[in-house]
Amino acid sequence: MSDHIYKIMELTGSSTVSMQGAIENAIARASKTVRDMRWFEVIETRGHIEEGTIKHWQVTIKVGFTLRD
Amino acid sequence: MSDHIYKIMELTGSSTVSMQGAIENAIARASKTVRDMRWFEVIETRGHIEEGTIKHWQVTIKVGFTLRD
Amino acid sequence: MSDHIYKIMELTGSSTVSMQGAIENAIARASKTVRDMRWFEVIETRGHIEEGTIKHWQVTIKVGFTLRD
Amino acid sequence: MSDHIYKIMELTGSSTVSMQGAIENAIARASKTVRDMRWFEVIETRGHIEEGTIKHWQVTIKVGFTLRD
Amino acid sequence: MSDHIYKIMELTGSSTVSMQGAIENAIARASKTVRDMRWFEVIETRGHIEEGTIKHWQVTIKVGFTLRD
Amino acid sequence: MSDHIYKIMELTGSSTVSMQGAIENAIARASKTVRDMRWFEVIETRGHIEEGTIKHWQVTIKVGFTLRD
Amino acid sequence: MSDHIYKIMELTGSSTVSMQGAIENAIARASKTVRDMRWFEVIETRGHIEEGTIKHWQVTIKVGFTLRD
Amino acid sequence: MSDHIYKIMELTGSSTVSMQGAIENAIARASKTVRDMRWFEVIETRGHIEEGTIKHWQVTIKVGFTLRD
Amino acid sequence: MSDHIYKIMELTGSSTVSMQGAIENAIARASKTVRDMRWFEVIETRGHIEEGTIKHWQVTIKVGFTLRD
Amino acid sequence: MSDHIYKIMELTGSSTVSMQGAIENAIARASKTVRDMRWFEVIETRGHIEEGTIKHWQVTIKVGFTLRD
Amino acid sequence: MSDHIYKIMELTGSSTVSMQGAIENAIARASKTVRDMRWFEVIETRGHIEEGTIKHWQVTIKVGFTLRD
Amino acid sequence: MSDHIYKIMELTGSSTVSMQGAIENAIARASKTVRDMRWFEVIETRGHIEEGTIKHWQVTIKVGFTLRD
Repeated sequence: MSDHIYKIMELTGSSTVSMQGAIENAIARASKTVRDMRWFEVIETRGHIEEGTIKHWQVTIKVGFTLRD
Repeated sequence: MSDHIYKIMELTGSSTVSMQGAIENAIARASKTVRDMRWFEVIETRGHIEEGTIKHWQVTIKVGFTLRD
Repeated sequence: MSDHIYKIMELTGSSTVSMQGAIENAIARASKTVRDMRWFEVIETRGHIEEGTIKHWQVTIKVGFTLRD
Repeated sequence: MSDHIYKIMELTGSSTVSMQGAIENAIARASKTVRDMRWFEVIETRGHIEEGTIKHWQVTIKVGFTLRD
Repeated sequence: MSDHIYKIMELTGSSTVSMQGAIENAIARASKTVRDMRWFEVIETRGHIEEGTIKHWQVTIKVGFTLRD
Repeated sequence: MSDHIYKIMELTGSSTVSMQGAIENAIARASKTVRDMRWFEVIETRGHIEEGTIKHWQVTIKVGFTLRD
Repeated sequence: MSDHIYKIMELTGSSTVSMQGAIENAIARASKTVRDMRWFEVIETRGHIEEGTIKHWQVTIKVGFTLRD
Repeated sequence: MSDHIYKIMELTGSSTVSMQGAIENAIARASKTVRDMRWFEVIETRGHIEEGTIKHWQVTIKVGFTLRD
Repeated sequence: MSDHIYKIMELTGSSTVSMQGAIENAIARASKTVRDMRWFEVIETRGHIEEGTIKHWQVTIKVGFTLRD
Repeated sequence: MSDHIYKIMELTGSSTVSMQGAIENAIARASKTVRDMRWFEVIETRGHIEEGTIKHWQVTIKVGFTLRD
Repeated sequence: MSDHIYKIMELTGSSTVSMQGAIENAIARASKTVRDMRWFEVIETRGHIEEGTIKHWQVTIKVGFTLRD
Repeated sequence: MSDHIYKIMELTGSSTVSMQGAIENAIARASKTVRDMRWFEVIETRGHIEEGTIKHWQVTIKVGFTLRD
């Protein structure tokens, strides 16, 4: 880990199944276009409710990735 | 979604099983008396420990619901 | 202002017109059922965007009102 | 402490005497209508000044109480 | 609203006229290059003063938009 | 903008008309005695309610001004 | 309470006796030079310890006072 | 629960499997040397990413335990 | 006060009598095993309620003490 | 400074030498691809330790730059 | 350190050279008119960028000084 | 980096020379008794002023270290 520079992006993932799934979905989608992702941090956990049950978990994360020279 | 007004209540759900279960329990209990719940947001995640293991997950959420005219 | 006790509720007002309108709508709606509101504080200002323009302003406020004896 | 659900309300108590009195007044007033209060947390401590001395202490607390089935 | 993923960008809009204008300017400018903006949240409201009057309102917002597959 | 030093003061402006008016009133009043104000930042937006309508907007700002040598 | 403007100053009071005394001392001292103080808010509560006991309570408050025309 | 005093320690647990597992691992490890743990609170949820998938969940918690006389 | 290094521990004191008593109890208990405590800072003030009255005040503090060479 | 719109990005710079160097490295790297950077703000200062000494300073900053029309 | 009262002012110092220089400049300037400064605390670290390099470091601090009787 | 558990301690380092020196002093002192320190994070930067100049920089950090099995 030499003098790298990282850029941080903010994403909101959603999942009908679980809190953790919302995070995993966000990272899976980002991996299609962003290489060298290194870490994430959970910023906010929310969700939508319909008919008294949770329809979507929505988790906002920050993701850091290495800026290539 | 016209000019609706929402009220926000704060609940702490608990579960012996999981963090996510504590949230689902809180919303299930609230749905008995509150109609038109629309979203929630996680505020705080805590728990009780006994004999070195987690006995209860306790998650505090804010829940928004539509105020009827 | 003797030894009064106040209760604080949290509301999200919305308006298609303005940030300030969202607050005024929330207080107008609450005044139908809550007497003796005394103050408010803005907690969060958000909005929905459609086709590149703001469709709804959504402002969350706390409102304090006197608890009658 | 089984799988209970708690609701949290926010109150501002006031007292001409002390910071602690403002909290005790808020809880005493709430106990007239709310059963099963379990804990509180201090959110904000303020006061009014007249003629260079404190006229009212005003303390805002969150109070959690058990939701009955 | 299926399992969408959103990206969040941070913008500072400015206006010589009003706080609300600064937000609207930021969203109008962003709509030239970003499609599918869905929501915004106000982060910070500042301004520049010259000769004792406000010359620019500067409002920083976060804007969420859908990531296309 | 050489090696200037700025002092920051905190003001609460009020207005019966608007949120933005409360800020403009605070800056107008301060400009009577403070020269070289350079920027402001909104800290808190509150208001007083009477008879179910907003009587005063009260906005607290920080104002930075240049310290003369 | 017409369109008044308030200035807010920050003070740290200390007391060898009590938390509340530190606040009262700060306001008593300020009242010697500042007229029209209207409210205060507690920002931080600290203290110094010597030989295992509290020697000074130190409480930082914000105090708002009316700016005269 | 008489006049007990509690000490609070901060731990970061990690797990290759789940967010909840990271918390459970931290408490299991702490229970080897600390008796009388009573509660925990989640402070921060992070993780490491390799090759576009989550390799470790890392959750930081505060844990309170009774100080014995 | 030369180039000292301080360590900071977090404690929750409780008292059936007062907010201030909870802090004093925590420091008195800590002084049995920790020498050279220098300052404290209040982090959180909570309490337990039974039958509509406060049974325990619980105050969490940070305490700094000198690390000996 | 007319009605400009700014975009804000978040970067983490690292340096084996100093806290300030980590910030300067992040801005130097960003200047290769981003024109019209105008200001930055420090968000978080961290570092890695090996064998009891600091191996890398890691400072996270927000950087604002003008969006061209 | 008897029952002193302290006043806290907020300053932004700037320096073309370093973060630390911005703080030192602010304190040096304040010492021309304020006696008995006792401590400071860093609130915010920002800077201006021109042509891809840092032109000014701007650090905002709070400074506490003893109020004389 | 397998399923390690880390403990986090909080330290305040001081230095008569520099902000960075205060951090380095804290880590150097801690390395005498704590093995396997892995990272740190700056929490607060303060200092003491005497005769109008900074006498001590005081920086509070959190330090994470591996808990051995």
